Amino acid sequence: MNATDILVVGGSAGGPIAAISARRNYPDKKITVIRREEKVLVPCGIPYIFGSIGSPEKNLIPYDVLFPKNDIDLVIDEVTAIDTDSKQVNTATSGVFGYEKLVMATGSQPVVPPIPGVDLENVFFAKKDIAYLNNFLKVLEGAEDIVIIGGGFIGVEFADEIRKRGVNVSIVEMLTYCLGLAYSDDFCQKVEEKLKERGINIYTNVGAKTILGDKRVNSVELSNGEKLKADVVLLGIGARPEVELAKAAGLEIGPTGAIAVDTYMRASAKDVFAVGDCAEKRSFFTGEPSLLRLASIAGMEARIAGANLYEIRQKNDGVIGTFSTIVGDLALGVAGLNEKSATDAGIDFVQAEVTTTDKHPGSMPDTHEMHLKMLFSKTGEIIGGEVYGGHSTAEFTNIIASMIQQKLRVWDIIKFQMTTQPALTASPVVYPIVNVAEIAMTML
Amino acid sequence: MNATDILVVGGSAGGPIAAISARRNYPDKKITVIRREEKVLVPCGIPYIFGSIGSPEKNLIPYDVLFPKNDIDLVIDEVTAIDTDSKQVNTATSGVFGYEKLVMATGSQPVVPPIPGVDLENVFFAKKDIAYLNNFLKVLEGAEDIVIIGGGFIGVEFADEIRKRGVNVSIVEMLTYCLGLAYSDDFCQKVEEKLKERGINIYTNVGAKTILGDKRVNSVELSNGEKLKADVVLLGIGARPEVELAKAAGLEIGPTGAIAVDTYMRASAKDVFAVGDCAEKRSFFTGEPSLLRLASIAGMEARIAGANLYEIRQKNDGVIGTFSTIVGDLALGVAGLNEKSATDAGIDFVQAEVTTTDKHPGSMPDTHEMHLKMLFSKTGEIIGGEVYGGHSTAEFTNIIASMIQQKLRVWDIIKFQMTTQPALTASPVVYPIVNVAEIAMTML
Repeated sequence: MNATDILVVGGSAGGPIAAISARRNYPDKKITVIRREEKVLVPCGIPYIFGSIGSPEKNLIPYDVLFPKNDIDLVIDEVTAIDTDSKQVNTATSGVFGYEKLVMATGSQPVVPPIPGVDLENVFFAKKDIAYLNNFLKVLEGAEDIVIIGGGFIGVEFADEIRKRGVNVSIVEMLTYCLGLAYSDDFCQKVEEKLKERGINIYTNVGAKTILGDKRVNSVELSNGEKLKADVVLLGIGARPEVELAKAAGLEIGPTGAIAVDTYMRASAKDVFAVGDCAEKRSFFTGEPSLLRLASIAGMEARIAGANLYEIRQKNDGVIGTFSTIVGDLALGVAGLNEKSATDAGIDFVQAEVTTTDKHPGSMPDTHEMHLKMLFSKTGEIIGGEVYGGHSTAEFTNIIASMIQQKLRVWDIIKFQMTTQPALTASPVVYPIVNVAEIAMTML
Repeated sequence: MNATDILVVGGSAGGPIAAISARRNYPDKKITVIRREEKVLVPCGIPYIFGSIGSPEKNLIPYDVLFPKNDIDLVIDEVTAIDTDSKQVNTATSGVFGYEKLVMATGSQPVVPPIPGVDLENVFFAKKDIAYLNNFLKVLEGAEDIVIIGGGFIGVEFADEIRKRGVNVSIVEMLTYCLGLAYSDDFCQKVEEKLKERGINIYTNVGAKTILGDKRVNSVELSNGEKLKADVVLLGIGARPEVELAKAAGLEIGPTGAIAVDTYMRASAKDVFAVGDCAEKRSFFTGEPSLLRLASIAGMEARIAGANLYEIRQKNDGVIGTFSTIVGDLALGVAGLNEKSATDAGIDFVQAEVTTTDKHPGSMPDTHEMHLKMLFSKTGEIIGGEVYGGHSTAEFTNIIASMIQQKLRVWDIIKFQMTTQPALTASPVVYPIVNVAEIAMTML
């Protein structure tokens, strides 16, 4: 039997981050990661393979550097069973591993919806699989029309990237707007304008009824009867936690179908932790189960689990939900709640917003319009921010995320001592975070 | 006599921001701003007039929109005297103004050093004066060689911009490095490399002894005897608070030569406040007098003064010091203390640093190397951050500034729920703020 102290199952984002954090918290322990993949794709980079990056091989996480640097052993194998009583893990070819502490980081798999024709040739998913994605790339070479089912982040980012190849791209989204789960309506409208400007066709408020074709896909029939020509179809309608191993091991499964964990990231069996897409999440705001699944959330959970392995050191306060994306040159970010999600959560709030520019004066080269909304609870605590602008939008969103996580109040934010610089930020006179907070103050 | 409730003297950054904040805090008051200038330049935009922007007229703050929108009266005139007993202000041509509350925001003026030849023709300063800057631009048209005395932000940004015109640019700096007061040595070396790459000559550890010429400048003699050809000279060696009016009004002057203020931004006379470059500042970290003068600090002070005019509502906790700039495509930011300033302040600290990329994977288009250092006190509180990278560097620095201002501890930062996105940020696996905090944790 192979013996290790800390065993991590899964090698995408959460698993390796937990291993690195474990190394930093418990420098003397033997740490082993078991993963299936020879090489590991950057998960959020997958859409960019099809435009900006060019190949899966250029979209790898450099764990070949990070693991040796952090003294982490790597086993490339399939875990076949876990016994949490004897604290042993079986693998397909490398035998049995005994552990002191186990971290489940088995991730998620794309949802395969029950649409007829979903198994036709040239119907693809955003799978974290190099060979599969290379085949997808090859098929796209000769393609004229792609239909993307699902207008969430995956669908929109794929559309924007694949469009760069000159392929005719259509998005089919059941909600009123693309990205409708993440952004408020006016932001979604901006995204759709930008997509249309780029020549992408958008079909919203409509489902995909049947994927048609004879062996190979040739079209998609929508729920309204319309037929879209398609020699390739991409399905991006979400992901489901990968919990087969956990279930088989008798770990408790939570309300969203992920591995149940407590605030210390402990699963239901002794000395077992779970992190990332495979683990249950709760909202920072309401404590309710959350469906958010992001690599950055996996990272946060992994760092908490890594710290808590041998001694409870840190607590998970729940997911805020901080997103960003870029469509053409329009970048959008959101942290915490927006008017839709705050209303859904039954939270009373005030919202203020401003429009300005991401450089100052606006005559600076490469200036983008910038729009910021911020939400505050009636007691003056920041609970959300939503912004569009240029290339600094994601880091700008991160300022807000940090403020939400620290539960800052309007006046903490009004006194914010940011840097402003003509080529890099909005003006100090109307710096949007501060300006919106001051407007919100007048509404409380 | 003209009567107003709130009278603001000065129309650059601090004054107008105080007026807008006053409007938001005290909606029923009559607010009047008196300023000298017909139009107001973006102060930090001045270097960019000479390259990216092209003319002072394209570098204006849109107060013609902001003032009416906030119901602020504007008087363009020169204030000649202030009587804080009778609460009256005299102007050159508009008569006397009575006030209930007065805000001094008279700003600063470029330091004119006692160098022989400083009054020769074609010797310029970064003056907030449209006609003056237009003349500077005109003189530059025919210029071949410019010598910039002072390698701080003004000097370096002017150098970078003027170089775009094809002029031969030299910087003369008395310290060991350009930007040596703001950044640590290795960052300064990066800046100097970039300046040299752009064809800019750098003379450090040397002063300007004499500006030579016959009526018009023709060269600069350095303290080491070397002579640099110059048909234009720019002096950028700092600014001194503009306090003549305040002195004449009997307001107390503080240790750095600025108007003394308390933590509520009140000057020594009743119902008088002072904000911005003309007001004394104290360090957030040590409480000692600070020489930092930035438009964004002026804004913070102005918002506090605006809130406190009729009722003490907010307190100034001192200046953190958050800067950023860009040279070529290398952007640099700093918030709070670095190894030099922390050492000077006698603070024990640990420092951790990482190098990564500002997009992920590094094969994404327009990826920049990103380097982050963060400083923590021995008790684990963040006290500083210094970063270089691409165009998101300033907003990235602002995340750190907010964390410093909220006195976050390593573990608050390790659990930070940021967004990461391939085209917009570093990877979630090694997101530098979180990664550096986790490394620092191992050093405490």
